[in-house]
Amino acid sequence: VRTVVLSGGTGSAKFLMGLQPLCHYTVVANVGDNSWFHGLYVCPDIDTVTYALAGELDTERGWGVRGDTFNALERLRELGSRDTWFKIGDVDMATHVYRTALIEDGKTLTQATEAIARAYGVRDWRILPATDSHVETRIRTAEKGEMHLQEFWVREAGRLTPTTVRYAGARAARPTPQVERAVASADRVILCPANPITSIMPTLSIPGVREAIRRSKARKVAVSPMVGQGAYSGPAAKLMAAKGIRPTSLGVAELYRGLVDALVIDESDREMERSISKAGMECLVTSTLMRNRDSQVRLARVALEA
Amino acid sequence: VRTVVLSGGTGSAKFLMGLQPLCHYTVVANVGDNSWFHGLYVCPDIDTVTYALAGELDTERGWGVRGDTFNALERLRELGSRDTWFKIGDVDMATHVYRTALIEDGKTLTQATEAIARAYGVRDWRILPATDSHVETRIRTAEKGEMHLQEFWVREAGRLTPTTVRYAGARAARPTPQVERAVASADRVILCPANPITSIMPTLSIPGVREAIRRSKARKVAVSPMVGQGAYSGPAAKLMAAKGIRPTSLGVAELYRGLVDALVIDESDREMERSISKAGMECLVTSTLMRNRDSQVRLARVALEA
Repeated sequence: VRTVVLSGGTGSAKFLMGLQPLCHYTVVANVGDNSWFHGLYVCPDIDTVTYALAGELDTERGWGVRGDTFNALERLRELGSRDTWFKIGDVDMATHVYRTALIEDGKTLTQATEAIARAYGVRDWRILPATDSHVETRIRTAEKGEMHLQEFWVREAGRLTPTTVRYAGARAARPTPQVERAVASADRVILCPANPITSIMPTLSIPGVREAIRRSKARKVAVSPMVGQGAYSGPAAKLMAAKGIRPTSLGVAELYRGLVDALVIDESDREMERSISKAGMECLVTSTLMRNRDSQVRLARVALEA
Repeated sequence: VRTVVLSGGTGSAKFLMGLQPLCHYTVVANVGDNSWFHGLYVCPDIDTVTYALAGELDTERGWGVRGDTFNALERLRELGSRDTWFKIGDVDMATHVYRTALIEDGKTLTQATEAIARAYGVRDWRILPATDSHVETRIRTAEKGEMHLQEFWVREAGRLTPTTVRYAGARAARPTPQVERAVASADRVILCPANPITSIMPTLSIPGVREAIRRSKARKVAVSPMVGQGAYSGPAAKLMAAKGIRPTSLGVAELYRGLVDALVIDESDREMERSISKAGMECLVTSTLMRNRDSQVRLARVALEA
């Protein structure tokens, strides 16, 4: 049984760690939050997934390497770098330095990601960037104009009012052959409980990805990240609203309509079950909370068996 | 009184620290050991001088920042980078990341060096790379062919047999306008007690530098790094021999003949005094050992007053 999982960062990492003891799988990782900091190419979601699968993720913070130090970043701050609002630990920086050198050496992001994952000991789970092109999620705000998702979420601490969201570079991007093959031959495609706007849609916006998933004979299941009117974490609700989408599991169902066979929603949203079924997909109700390893594995099992 | 000092790395840093309480000065720093590691542009001698003047040099090791950690380097090793024989600490890496970003942004090495020195609080002493071009000292060895000085000295631990030395890129390089102006208006030019082959000659090999120093009305003094048949540290003797030069203060005198007015040599080499005087320069005999702050300042004072 070949399993392909579309992922974002922090929330997805929890789900992927729950899925890890249950099966091998291929992650199609979000690239929309990639950016350059201090001349280094940083891929926050890809790295979060890599660190998670390697057992090195700082699960308290939800990003970076457990026990990392921040000596280089502190010095960059003293040197006057303006990018130090984005927290890069010393070990984490090694990943970015190594990846940037590989890419400047002519390697694709897919090759760089594979080399890093292998070095981190991730062998039975494959991590594929959705595309080798640079795609970035850009948020227009009422207060300060357009900015990169990371600037919106980290530098500005998510306080601004988003008005529109676009995926710059997506139209000209192509899914990699590796992603196309993985989706085409998949028996199961799972969409992580991730922010649809910042984690899943950047991947689905790349021409060919949505069609490849639709064409695939795989069973397609999404897990909603929403509980009531919000998400467990992150700016999902605000950004869904900016896209004119209800910030609930019903909104998620509308986004994924025609793409997935089933949607897993939280038990507190049980009243949405009928509306979601009417949207043309099965609806599974369970607890989507992932507070510890057990609940992560439990939710992953529900998604697998959906 | 305007003082210009030609410098290398470790040995020069001691001398420059001794000179620091005595006067402000402009350092013309060696660029011949510059190299790329992990895609970062690393300038070991420039950084050693910067860290020394900022009071941050790890004086035990003679390079890097005092108290630095090596977490990024350790991870780069695990990632499979082949360049980890060159020791870069986490704080030190911030310098390289910052400089590389500035240079990729179109800044010159001179501008990058100035920005870093300023951020390190070095204001009254100016650090100028000899050139903005890439010049590298390359050592041909009997055993393994030609390699970068750092590969010869650090990776191979100086164990190979050097047969020739060349300064790749020097002929096409030009001293910067800042260096030309500093030398032209200098009242004193001091050549640090540095390895002549790896620290001073790369600078003197850049067309125009030797002539600029000769033309300058400054008093010109060199401090020999040699004691007897060797140097306090580094591969000076082996490399001088490879260049067909006696690995003694007399050899240093021959190298600097026609360029300096006076050479300071160690008291244990007193018997060379007459031969050096015959080479057309004054010879000052003193203890050139720099074991502590006091002896550093003492030697710097001798050079200043020579």
